[in-house]
Amino acid sequence: MAIFNRDEYEARVRAVRNRMEQQGLDTLIVTDPANINYLTGYDGWSFYVPQAIIVSLVLTEPLWVGREQDLFGARLTCWMNENALKPYADHYVQSLIRHPMDYMAQVIKSYSLHHGRIGVEMDGYYFSALSYQRLLQGLPDAHFQDATLLINWIRLIKSEAEIHVIKQAAHIVTRAMDTAMEVIRAGVRECDAAAEVLRAQIQGTEEVGGDYPAIVPLMPSAVRTGAAHLTWVNRRYEPGDTVNIEIAGCVQRYHCPLARSAVIGVPSPHLTELSQVVAEGVTNALDVVKPGALAEEVEGAWQKVIQHYGYQKSSRLGYAVGLNYPPDWGEHTVSLRKGDLTELQPNMVFHLIAGMWLDGYGLEISETFRVIPEGVEVLTGTERKLFVLEEPQALCS
Amino acid sequence: MAIFNRDEYEARVRAVRNRMEQQGLDTLIVTDPANINYLTGYDGWSFYVPQAIIVSLVLTEPLWVGREQDLFGARLTCWMNENALKPYADHYVQSLIRHPMDYMAQVIKSYSLHHGRIGVEMDGYYFSALSYQRLLQGLPDAHFQDATLLINWIRLIKSEAEIHVIKQAAHIVTRAMDTAMEVIRAGVRECDAAAEVLRAQIQGTEEVGGDYPAIVPLMPSAVRTGAAHLTWVNRRYEPGDTVNIEIAGCVQRYHCPLARSAVIGVPSPHLTELSQVVAEGVTNALDVVKPGALAEEVEGAWQKVIQHYGYQKSSRLGYAVGLNYPPDWGEHTVSLRKGDLTELQPNMVFHLIAGMWLDGYGLEISETFRVIPEGVEVLTGTERKLFVLEEPQALCS
Repeated sequence: MAIFNRDEYEARVRAVRNRMEQQGLDTLIVTDPANINYLTGYDGWSFYVPQAIIVSLVLTEPLWVGREQDLFGARLTCWMNENALKPYADHYVQSLIRHPMDYMAQVIKSYSLHHGRIGVEMDGYYFSALSYQRLLQGLPDAHFQDATLLINWIRLIKSEAEIHVIKQAAHIVTRAMDTAMEVIRAGVRECDAAAEVLRAQIQGTEEVGGDYPAIVPLMPSAVRTGAAHLTWVNRRYEPGDTVNIEIAGCVQRYHCPLARSAVIGVPSPHLTELSQVVAEGVTNALDVVKPGALAEEVEGAWQKVIQHYGYQKSSRLGYAVGLNYPPDWGEHTVSLRKGDLTELQPNMVFHLIAGMWLDGYGLEISETFRVIPEGVEVLTGTERKLFVLEEPQALCS
Repeated sequence: MAIFNRDEYEARVRAVRNRMEQQGLDTLIVTDPANINYLTGYDGWSFYVPQAIIVSLVLTEPLWVGREQDLFGARLTCWMNENALKPYADHYVQSLIRHPMDYMAQVIKSYSLHHGRIGVEMDGYYFSALSYQRLLQGLPDAHFQDATLLINWIRLIKSEAEIHVIKQAAHIVTRAMDTAMEVIRAGVRECDAAAEVLRAQIQGTEEVGGDYPAIVPLMPSAVRTGAAHLTWVNRRYEPGDTVNIEIAGCVQRYHCPLARSAVIGVPSPHLTELSQVVAEGVTNALDVVKPGALAEEVEGAWQKVIQHYGYQKSSRLGYAVGLNYPPDWGEHTVSLRKGDLTELQPNMVFHLIAGMWLDGYGLEISETFRVIPEGVEVLTGTERKLFVLEEPQALCS
């Protein structure tokens, strides 16, 4: 049973076929797990072995090609008929002789698709350089073409059903962030705080449980807050520590990320100032969000504020977000940065993350927002500020 | 500060250089995050953008090439000097014009390494088909050679320091499995049980906190146990459900996986029989483990038992395990299966997983073991059986 109804999947496949026709493609080999899920509902932690969906202009349903061990998972999660499921034998797995893409080539030949133009996701996750080579060898008569973000661009505008689950994820991340602010205290081990945050992410709400987010909690503290992508360690928080918390709620693989920073005890004057500048910058950026605004204009509004106060940030301010699998919840299409001229449209969803990683300290405030006809809808209500966490009495007395 | 001492990293780099010389390589571009960590200590959830370590026969230290945003993380986690760290600007990230591998090519040229034989991990994770194309374009005078598992084969035999952290991970997974058996009850939501298991995995022990395992808990129940790689859903467990639990403890990115199945209430006769056969098969397989035994002999001893009872399993029985990042904790070298003639040696570590995924039901019993001079050391002490979980009194009255 796929998550959405069959109409939704068929509309997605139609949209992909239209884009394929525009780009002159006869066949598309989809290897990005998010794109696989998007078209078929397929879900499972099986992307560590090669797997793909084959979309063809001449076949009524997409074909699922995966490991035999995962066939039953495909039956349970895909909307297509049994004869669209093409499992490969286990001796293809991590073999020095056989490669799953050899089998993929056979499937494509068996449907006589091997003479046409075939799109592949050249820069997507889980499509290795060798996978491509083996496809080239197995299908010498095909013409290959890069179709890396073809489906991602279609995913950029969400359906109402997708917005619904992203809002469920927003409730989850709100709770998980509340949990972080409750458990982070001097004397607590970082791993123990991260454990409570992860628990909240997976418990979810009474309405809906949490799926695993595509990224684990990024929760560096103290000097490690100067780095963008560190997780937790064994150390105990100390009075005066800053902690960055970048997490997401996830429902049916759809994400709502959220980042905040907290300080244990009294923040330094420069951190307080930085947090006020960042909050003002985020608010100013959100104020320009509306249909027709350009992605770079959102970032420009942010830059105007921080430059006014003498700060710099060279990395992008955000990106489109939604359905995904590890290692990333971003969709790799639109970035909120100078030079990105994408016009915002209703039901695009972005993670705007104002992360300042300075020399030996850092701070993050983010918002996930949806573009709506009236402008912007921020999906969570967590206060836009540096959280100041009291030290426990026991440590003060 | 890297995790292990500098001697350990230098020994690893020496071993890699020796292997490179044997294979005629001048330079090796390492893109697998586990291999990057193995050589340098680098740790961070940054593998969603291209990054690499360059090992050269003529450079004293490996070079780290990664995103500018992650430079500070590299400073904090790598053992090399500052001048070995080569960050690329943020405008290379998810750009339609620039690609991080263009920058990689520049770095290689700047060290005059572009005329030699360069090894790349053609079938590794996070080295896309496009990454390879851009390297080919950027380094037209180089001769590229596939070096996919070069480092993985060196990783196969663990140092005492590595064994130490894997044993710490064994303590963690034991606790997490205990937690699973405590929380799985009729009426409990799967997501709530998974949340408690994840919490236990990350809390770890008093001695050491848990790192995030490379795979989330695989915890299908009821009919979904027939599939190998499903996670949890929102449904509540029901009396009579079987639940598979495949999890790992993880310390400093080193894993100790463990799988067991449980039944809520009274197991069916065929499930009881299957569990006894599987337990006997696992024990028989472990009995043949010793230095000099072949990987396929371990699997053969398993097959002998299950075939005697009329069962079949076509997928492999296990694989080498250790240091890793999502999406896999397996090392992709030795598999316990027919045709794998690798001779076992002391301090190899394997996850032997007897997973039976039958039509609409399944069962798993696994052990992580270390090869020792005397034979085998099983790293966890969890009972090798189908766990029968009582239904709560409240539901029975």
